[in-house]
Amino acid sequence: MPSAPDPARLSLNTATTRAQWGLAQAIEGCARHGIRGIAPWRDKLAEMGLQEAARAIRAHDLTVTGLCRGGFFTAKNWLDDNRRAIEEAHVLGARCLVLVVGGLIPGSKDLIYARDRIRECISIILPEARQAGVPLAIEPLHPMQAADRACVNTLEQALDVCDALGDDGRSAQCALGVAVDVYHVWWDPKLEQQIKRAGKRVLAYHVCDWLVPTRDLLNDRGMMGDGVIDLKLLRTWIEAAEYAGFHEVEIFSERDWWRRDADDVLRVCKDRYLKSC
Amino acid sequence: MPSAPDPARLSLNTATTRAQWGLAQAIEGCARHGIRGIAPWRDKLAEMGLQEAARAIRAHDLTVTGLCRGGFFTAKNWLDDNRRAIEEAHVLGARCLVLVVGGLIPGSKDLIYARDRIRECISIILPEARQAGVPLAIEPLHPMQAADRACVNTLEQALDVCDALGDDGRSAQCALGVAVDVYHVWWDPKLEQQIKRAGKRVLAYHVCDWLVPTRDLLNDRGMMGDGVIDLKLLRTWIEAAEYAGFHEVEIFSERDWWRRDADDVLRVCKDRYLKSC
Repeated sequence: MPSAPDPARLSLNTATTRAQWGLAQAIEGCARHGIRGIAPWRDKLAEMGLQEAARAIRAHDLTVTGLCRGGFFTAKNWLDDNRRAIEEAHVLGARCLVLVVGGLIPGSKDLIYARDRIRECISIILPEARQAGVPLAIEPLHPMQAADRACVNTLEQALDVCDALGDDGRSAQCALGVAVDVYHVWWDPKLEQQIKRAGKRVLAYHVCDWLVPTRDLLNDRGMMGDGVIDLKLLRTWIEAAEYAGFHEVEIFSERDWWRRDADDVLRVCKDRYLKSC
Repeated sequence: MPSAPDPARLSLNTATTRAQWGLAQAIEGCARHGIRGIAPWRDKLAEMGLQEAARAIRAHDLTVTGLCRGGFFTAKNWLDDNRRAIEEAHVLGARCLVLVVGGLIPGSKDLIYARDRIRECISIILPEARQAGVPLAIEPLHPMQAADRACVNTLEQALDVCDALGDDGRSAQCALGVAVDVYHVWWDPKLEQQIKRAGKRVLAYHVCDWLVPTRDLLNDRGMMGDGVIDLKLLRTWIEAAEYAGFHEVEIFSERDWWRRDADDVLRVCKDRYLKSC
């Protein structure tokens, strides 16, 4: 049996309460509920203002477990946008900048080109991120989001990019690694093997659950324990890779959790993290 | 540039017209439109009656490119049901019996066990299928269907099962191979490599398209050319593996193709097969 989850390592990804709360409220909410980590999304960060957010997060001594998100290399202004994201992550002291890499080039069916291009784009921003002390975390997204959100779709593929760009996870400070979100990778027959391969390159770990049935390809994620993912098993794999970071709850849920009182949501997150993760 | 698709190798998977037609109508429809292959589903086959269906298919000299489906090893009566499916495929002279293997055991989160069990179940029915001259085609299903329909989710994984059960694709008659459905595998970074590995174990090739956005996890497939799958490229990979079988159109489409006149659907299938595949 694995050890019980450590309450001090729970983090709130603000997507979980994005329908109810701005970032200031989410920061206050985490402080109120004793949640020690937070992962802001950049739209909410912009609303609140970067400096004010940084002050509030410091005032409550929260750890920024990741900034969501950089990437989307399919966008016209991808380079400027990623530079801004790196700067923001630096100001917040974020443990990583999560890269959702983007899908096919609009109008194109060339998946191989799209994937090659992603590797090139990351290679361009990587030196700047390294200089700013902001590790980049490539997040493989579920294959059902390959066309429109991210054409990096397995952990193996993400690690191949890391390898190609020269981060094999052996240096003291990992500049390019991965974000492992259970929702995207739980189905993967090679998951245990690839988490092992990732080792210290696991920069973030996101939890939620896969509902049966799933009624929407984007916004129908479940609370931990309500679906079919064996979260306790996955935690043993992550811990075997010596991941010592936070467990970040990220739930997109149009029909359920976004409609509830956000304080209730945080209570359930804490409870389920201890019971089901 | 690859050669143009051969009109004589188009097949209709009857799921494409399942809302409009019974099997007798689909057989007549194929004959009327000069479509030379057909892949029946077993519910429609039962409605028509096996012997009558076999007679009608023979009368029109259609090739049965596959019988859908065996598998679902999670069902209580899986063994009897698969034996019946093998017998039906034998009577129809089907080129393969497609195996949709089933997902998690209801109530369980143990994906590793579910996958091990599938290998065992296939090993039990394989000798009977071999004796009946019915090749079994494991169909990897899209990862979004891992929990409830099939926990074989990549071609690599399906081929690992084939390898484990002793069919390496080198014998003259392949008894255990794979069904490659573009909808399920198009996103896979290792697709070209694994199709090459499959070689003569590709027993069926299914076409349709991936729509953006996709509004349902099961029944929102697109007509070839309406989505983002590079079907022409995939055909070059399949042909490089010396696949010489049919291209079977299988479109589950609650909102669109199931609502149209079925003769129109067949006309569009033929047209798009020539233009977009």
